[in-house]
Amino acid sequence: MEITHIEHIGIAVKDIEQAIKFYEETYGFKCYAVEEVADQKVKTAFFMVGQTKIELLESTSPDGPIGKFIEKKGEGIHHIAFAGKNVKEALPELESKGVLLIDKQPRKGAEGLDIAFLHPKSTFGVLTEICEKIETK
Amino acid sequence: MEITHIEHIGIAVKDIEQAIKFYEETYGFKCYAVEEVADQKVKTAFFMVGQTKIELLESTSPDGPIGKFIEKKGEGIHHIAFAGKNVKEALPELESKGVLLIDKQPRKGAEGLDIAFLHPKSTFGVLTEICEKIETK
Repeated sequence: MEITHIEHIGIAVKDIEQAIKFYEETYGFKCYAVEEVADQKVKTAFFMVGQTKIELLESTSPDGPIGKFIEKKGEGIHHIAFAGKNVKEALPELESKGVLLIDKQPRKGAEGLDIAFLHPKSTFGVLTEICEKIETK
Repeated sequence: MEITHIEHIGIAVKDIEQAIKFYEETYGFKCYAVEEVADQKVKTAFFMVGQTKIELLESTSPDGPIGKFIEKKGEGIHHIAFAGKNVKEALPELESKGVLLIDKQPRKGAEGLDIAFLHPKSTFGVLTEICEKIETK
C-alpha cells in the first residue's frame, strides 16, 4: 500500500473541553471541528498541526474503546493513523504479511474518512489506523 | 511559541532491527538513519512519512527511560515531538502557563536537534517534546 503522510494522532482524554483549552492556550493550535462518532462512543476534536491532525478523543461511555483504554493505561496517545491509498485493497495485503486486522473492511470514521484499525499485537504495540478520503461524486 | 508541524513520533520497541524490518516491509517506509543517543541510553531509527518522522527507540540499558517505559507499559507510542521556533525562549513561557518541564533548558537530541521534554502530568498524559533545528554557521 502507498502511505502518503500521517493523517492524525489520536489522544485519549478524560475531559475534551479542558484538553481543547490546553492545546489552544499552550501551543496556539485552533480546534476547527468537534464531532461525535456514535458507533465508537467517542467525542472528537481536531487541530491541524502542519500536515497532520491532533485528534482528541473523549469517551461518551465507560464501555467504549477510549473509556477502556483510559481505565487501563490512563490518558495519553492512543493511536497513529496513516493516510493511504486503496485501503480496501490494502487490508488483505497487510493480513497476508501477518498483520492482525481489527477491521476486515474499511468503515466510516470521523471526518468522513474510510478507516481500518490494525491490532497492536501485530504492530509492535502501536494501535495503527490506515485511512483514506474517498471522494464521492 | 510557534509550532510549525509534528517533527516526529517516538515509538518504544524492544528490538529495533525487527521493528525496522516491520515498518519497511509492511508500510514500504525506508529507514534513512540509525543513531545512538548515549545520554538517553537509546538507539534510534528514522523513517520519513510525509512531513513527519517515525522515530523507533530501543533502550541500550534496562535503566534507561525507554527500558523503564517498556517495563511499565509495554512497547508502543512513547512521545510526540512538535517542531517549534525559539524553544529556549518558549520553555519559561510554557512553565508560566503551568506546564511542568522535564528539561529546563534545551539539550541535544538525535539528528542534532535542540530538544526539551514536557512532563505528561501537565500535558494530559502525553509525553511531549518540543524541538528545533538550530543552524550552525
